[in-house]
Amino acid sequence: MIKLNTNYANLKDSYLFYNIAQKTKAYLEAHPDKRLYRMGIGDVSLPLCDAVIKALNEGVSDQAKKESFHGYMPECGAPFLREAIRDYYFQKGIELDADEVFVSSGASDELGDILDLFDKTSTALVIEPAYPAYVDANIIAGRNIVHLSSGKENGFLPLPDDSIDADLIYICSPNNPTGAVFSKDKLQKWVDYANSKGAVILFDAAYEAFIEEDLPHSIFELEGAKNCAIEICSLSKTAGFTGTRLGYTIIPFDLKRGGISLHDMWVRNRTTKTNGVSYIIQKGAAAVFTEEGQKQIHENIAIYKNNAKVLMQALDKLKIWYCGGKNAPYIWMKCPNGMGSWEFFDYLLNEIQVVGTPGEGFGACGEGYFRFSTFGSPEDTKEAAKRLCELLG
Amino acid sequence: MIKLNTNYANLKDSYLFYNIAQKTKAYLEAHPDKRLYRMGIGDVSLPLCDAVIKALNEGVSDQAKKESFHGYMPECGAPFLREAIRDYYFQKGIELDADEVFVSSGASDELGDILDLFDKTSTALVIEPAYPAYVDANIIAGRNIVHLSSGKENGFLPLPDDSIDADLIYICSPNNPTGAVFSKDKLQKWVDYANSKGAVILFDAAYEAFIEEDLPHSIFELEGAKNCAIEICSLSKTAGFTGTRLGYTIIPFDLKRGGISLHDMWVRNRTTKTNGVSYIIQKGAAAVFTEEGQKQIHENIAIYKNNAKVLMQALDKLKIWYCGGKNAPYIWMKCPNGMGSWEFFDYLLNEIQVVGTPGEGFGACGEGYFRFSTFGSPEDTKEAAKRLCELLG
Repeated sequence: MIKLNTNYANLKDSYLFYNIAQKTKAYLEAHPDKRLYRMGIGDVSLPLCDAVIKALNEGVSDQAKKESFHGYMPECGAPFLREAIRDYYFQKGIELDADEVFVSSGASDELGDILDLFDKTSTALVIEPAYPAYVDANIIAGRNIVHLSSGKENGFLPLPDDSIDADLIYICSPNNPTGAVFSKDKLQKWVDYANSKGAVILFDAAYEAFIEEDLPHSIFELEGAKNCAIEICSLSKTAGFTGTRLGYTIIPFDLKRGGISLHDMWVRNRTTKTNGVSYIIQKGAAAVFTEEGQKQIHENIAIYKNNAKVLMQALDKLKIWYCGGKNAPYIWMKCPNGMGSWEFFDYLLNEIQVVGTPGEGFGACGEGYFRFSTFGSPEDTKEAAKRLCELLG
Repeated sequence: MIKLNTNYANLKDSYLFYNIAQKTKAYLEAHPDKRLYRMGIGDVSLPLCDAVIKALNEGVSDQAKKESFHGYMPECGAPFLREAIRDYYFQKGIELDADEVFVSSGASDELGDILDLFDKTSTALVIEPAYPAYVDANIIAGRNIVHLSSGKENGFLPLPDDSIDADLIYICSPNNPTGAVFSKDKLQKWVDYANSKGAVILFDAAYEAFIEEDLPHSIFELEGAKNCAIEICSLSKTAGFTGTRLGYTIIPFDLKRGGISLHDMWVRNRTTKTNGVSYIIQKGAAAVFTEEGQKQIHENIAIYKNNAKVLMQALDKLKIWYCGGKNAPYIWMKCPNGMGSWEFFDYLLNEIQVVGTPGEGFGACGEGYFRFSTFGSPEDTKEAAKRLCELLG
């Protein structure tokens, strides 16, 4: 009989956001007259910007006519989009070749797929609290995982430690869920550590567009990063693509281990395992990187940033400790009165119909913390902040 | 130092269609005055049908307005599309639950991803000649592969043999590259074999819409298939989605091994490793399954079928042996005069500028054969048939 992948048995029963969905569904069934203020799952609420819509419409039109119809796309991405992303990096002071850019169906897909490059015996280091899929994808692959806890004492930005032996290092900055952002100095320590150990960093830069202060948007701003890092990005939060789906991945030509190019391996993987990303969606994505597109997406980001301000003001007033919110779309707060994460979740849901994400869902050291997403509507966010102040004030 | 996945070293240097692209590129550079008649890679040439374009436009419009905007889609597929596909199967006499249908970014993506369900020690059986990615994806995973040759003597439709010990059985019918189609009786033998061994069949039904005669469109037409098979489908050829990207996969609730549900495992995999398929594309895909959509895609399929007729008439005239063409979009011919596959490729390219696919690229037993795709334009196909007759007549 066929042997199934037994690693699935090592996964926890179900997924964080699924649990939240089930709990909110049960609440609404029991209280059909209530409405919820959802700041749990980090889904955006603003529609796609005009420049993207225009390009998507053009993409659809192209597919309607024989002369402009696109069949199979290049597996690693359409040249027009790879070049647009290369130029976007150039504006940030980072020189890339367009072939170092891979177009993906989204960062979540890519974070799972990219593990195909590494041996099962390699050890993954996950800085926690963390996006649960980092851990789960490695459990499915049967990989050993080192959990590096962080906390208030280091501002949820831990530094490498020579006693840690890890091959694959996940860094998400601006961080989901904590909203903390590595400074250049601190991030350099991780780059140096990876280069000294021969490790590879998987740098999740999905929230870089939310940075306001002088903090690294890309790991490739750091000295030596092209020798040790893969950067995985997404338009989900930057341009509202959560349901439209597009991401991109940078694998530098210089990233080699044992003389083998990880870039070349990934080309071989993509040409075997995909037929590329939808032409229509790539066309829409390219519009994000135009002058007009950048202006429009930053107008949307400003609305989310204002939500963050509203929530931060409420927490300041309540004298509750938090981090994030300034350079990130997430706010990570300490649960009041020593409450546990899920206890606080139930409390907010039942008392004021506000839905957030329990910190415990991002790893054991997240217990006692709670995440708010700032991607809701301004009206809902204001109402939620008001209700929080009334409940906890 | 991190250990890379060393299985990549066991892959052949590069990919079949990449080689063809390089050879044709070199030819065109050397002969800038010539034009090619491309019947190599199985890419479609007709644009998307009106019903799909209309739905894609609606999908884009929905993403432009706050009231109709879609963020994260359900990871396993939008209910409206899962239900449309369930109804499509029902029309073929197959009862499914909509939750047994998973929406994917395309069959090629899914064929790679689905291997995550199985242990590395399971053995894959590939009936050759075969789509090269079946073999390559298993090489990357480090899986043992049994190559089952087929040939003219069994019409490229081999039957199971108790001496073969395999866990994971790839069956593609209508077949790529041979165009051969399993009858109900023959396919039943594979289903019975899989059930008796506890194996799992990966049934690639990408070309089912091309069947004219009374032959199985789905493996689930067979007794016992819900206990042993996963069906992987695609709109690429059916509806011209090669560059638009959408596929679907059927994993029955009844498919269990050692008491474990493969359906449940796949739900867990998808909720961990993806955030679903683009809303816009799913909206377009759903239109394929409407009455209007079905009518329109079959008008396109009729054009490709006419191409097949034109090529078959030429081969009949030349008294060259072939199979496929009738219930499949591929024609698989014996190379004339004992020529090798790549020799014949070069001969056609240089002499008559016709590009096909060398059979050897689909496995050793494909040597001496050649594949024509019927997805080109009617004009090109007629011209290629004429040139073939002149060259080989």
